Amino acid sequence: MERIIATYHIETPIAPEDAAAILAGEQSSGTFVAVPGETEELKRRFAARVESVERTGTVTAPSMPGASSPNGTFHQATVRVSWSIEQFGTNLPMMVSTLQGNLYEIRAFTGLRLIDIDLPTSYGTHFRGPAYGIAGCRELTATHNRPLIGTIIKPSVGMTAAETATIVDTLAGAGIDFIKDDELMSSTANNSFEQRLDAVMDVLERHADRTGKMVMYAFNISGEMDEMLSRYESIVDVGGTCAMVSINSVGLSAVKRICDEGALAIHGHRNGWGMLTRHPMLGIDFKAYQKIWRLAGVDQLHVNGIANKFWESDDSVVASIEACQTPLFDQPNPLPVVSSGQWGGQAFETWRRTQTIDLLYMAGGGIMAHPMGQAAGVMSLQQAWQAAVEGLDIDQAASRYPAFAAARKKFEGK
Amino acid sequence: MERIIATYHIETPIAPEDAAAILAGEQSSGTFVAVPGETEELKRRFAARVESVERTGTVTAPSMPGASSPNGTFHQATVRVSWSIEQFGTNLPMMVSTLQGNLYEIRAFTGLRLIDIDLPTSYGTHFRGPAYGIAGCRELTATHNRPLIGTIIKPSVGMTAAETATIVDTLAGAGIDFIKDDELMSSTANNSFEQRLDAVMDVLERHADRTGKMVMYAFNISGEMDEMLSRYESIVDVGGTCAMVSINSVGLSAVKRICDEGALAIHGHRNGWGMLTRHPMLGIDFKAYQKIWRLAGVDQLHVNGIANKFWESDDSVVASIEACQTPLFDQPNPLPVVSSGQWGGQAFETWRRTQTIDLLYMAGGGIMAHPMGQAAGVMSLQQAWQAAVEGLDIDQAASRYPAFAAARKKFEGK
Repeated sequence: MERIIATYHIETPIAPEDAAAILAGEQSSGTFVAVPGETEELKRRFAARVESVERTGTVTAPSMPGASSPNGTFHQATVRVSWSIEQFGTNLPMMVSTLQGNLYEIRAFTGLRLIDIDLPTSYGTHFRGPAYGIAGCRELTATHNRPLIGTIIKPSVGMTAAETATIVDTLAGAGIDFIKDDELMSSTANNSFEQRLDAVMDVLERHADRTGKMVMYAFNISGEMDEMLSRYESIVDVGGTCAMVSINSVGLSAVKRICDEGALAIHGHRNGWGMLTRHPMLGIDFKAYQKIWRLAGVDQLHVNGIANKFWESDDSVVASIEACQTPLFDQPNPLPVVSSGQWGGQAFETWRRTQTIDLLYMAGGGIMAHPMGQAAGVMSLQQAWQAAVEGLDIDQAASRYPAFAAARKKFEGK
Repeated sequence: MERIIATYHIETPIAPEDAAAILAGEQSSGTFVAVPGETEELKRRFAARVESVERTGTVTAPSMPGASSPNGTFHQATVRVSWSIEQFGTNLPMMVSTLQGNLYEIRAFTGLRLIDIDLPTSYGTHFRGPAYGIAGCRELTATHNRPLIGTIIKPSVGMTAAETATIVDTLAGAGIDFIKDDELMSSTANNSFEQRLDAVMDVLERHADRTGKMVMYAFNISGEMDEMLSRYESIVDVGGTCAMVSINSVGLSAVKRICDEGALAIHGHRNGWGMLTRHPMLGIDFKAYQKIWRLAGVDQLHVNGIANKFWESDDSVVASIEACQTPLFDQPNPLPVVSSGQWGGQAFETWRRTQTIDLLYMAGGGIMAHPMGQAAGVMSLQQAWQAAVEGLDIDQAASRYPAFAAARKKFEGK
């Protein structure tokens, strides 16, 4: 029978082997005292199994405060635990409750982090995965041989639908591939979802008639289930190609339901992610996290960016891009969304470290605040990527491309 | 215009006032560089506002690793930030993305925790809150003047539907008020949801015909949206009174959709909660968390228990019970679900510290492994509560009640 294997980093004052056994018991057939009915056959079939325990070191202070160790030592280890697929089948929320449920509450752990999930073959058959992914998003935006260039409407909130449409008009005229609502913006008192959808799509249709290219606009539908479905339909009706959902806030079952529709590319915004991952010995690694959302069918996933304005290291960003571009079954790979404090300058390091152009490269202020205007902002990003892929360095790129040079002067001060 | 106020505990190497301003900017109209369109009028209407900053102390090591401070000092503070209701209206996922979104990623914070949310009056009109809550669950189970006594079917997974029904039969015969699936159990290879629903409800109907009391069984419907709705309907069709959802795994939009149906009491299981709250300077406090799920309409919310088997302190458990029983608008209060390693022995301290019987008091092994059988297990819990409320101590209770005395011998060894 197929098994799902979860890899954790654990920290514990007791023997890591014992801590892993507690985890396996708590998350399958165990309770705090033996009960009737817990037969050997039942345990054979349904008990979670500790597959391996690899000790990685010791520390003298617990990662989570409030715990003590009799000898002042806390062991760190990588453990692999497996469950029979018979326990929860292909039910994703049940998989999450099993792999990430009450185990974080277990007293024996002073640190616990889900690092990876090995999924069984049947998941590749049952789940379609992203309906569009990288290839589909390239197709929808007619963008090939370079990253998709995108931006976020800023200011995040406060503008009217008409003001938003005016900016969209400029950006579409400048040859942008993708535009999105900010994650803080869905429907405000002065800019309803419906008004913005109509105003933006009018503009984009007009540009598409002229150029043959429909710019992808990610309308933020995050909200209640029925409203999301109805807004999704509205986007389809007026010829839009993308809806955005804040995956952590909306939650797994509703996001899966939206993705199942399959008529739009789904832009998965991971705001709230910092809470789940920022402490290195708590929560979940992106490698595991992105697998869950790929199974749900998300087409685009945020990965932060090189030299971002947030806490995340470049190494972590690079690992996240690689995770999205590692095949899962024969499903389309999701498009990594690079953003946060980005302008063309980071294209060079992003390319050097990832060697991929299969990215949605997003700049907010980096485009909207370009000194020569937003059209030059878009152009400067395309130039940066062209230069990076051709092997130019940042100085050479600035000499060759005036729009990029102007961006550099603005954002790097030289 | 109404505002929503969020209270955070923060930790930062910079001045807390500056860090709070960064948070407010990031979560409303800000970007990393000023952009056209960010007018004064727009900022007046939509900018988040720092309402107060109260410094609470300094530490010399950051709560989140990886950060440094020029002078080695990290400030801790309680800050209150407010948003105009015009930014997201009554859209709960958007509220979560605003109050708990990218702010956890901000570099200036070495700790950030959402402590409380002050909701505006209009939320009390817009959201119904729990359809049943404490009073409704008492009504549905015909249980008055004492806590509802409940149990979790154990072993968590592995038994057949028929084996489950046999246990339910014994428990119902013993006068239990509430039984639930384990959060790890929804539909297994040897115990499908439908089989279990039929087998359990047959038994409960039979007992209800005899006693006039329908035991509440929380069938775990956690899963995909449409399947949850269809299972919900199946429960209603056969006369069940409750459905269980793992709120973190299922997610907010889908849980709200389920609660909106209003035909069943919704048992909200918070597995995964440890990940969101265990680090004291990261994540979210239960006080804020439970408000979100009350607005969604959850009728029963887990709060752990006194002297539980997990990491959580008694103080934290008591605070959670109080949070659930603090009125929110004029909505029914949700029923706090006390569980984890419970038997009758904790009734005394639970009563002493909370002075409430408006609880669903759950014992898994505490009932199922009672030395005189499960009926005596149920009885021992009722006895413990009766004794506690009457002012008896644990020794006096054991002298008066043989079933409780037997439980004490089993679980306390004396």
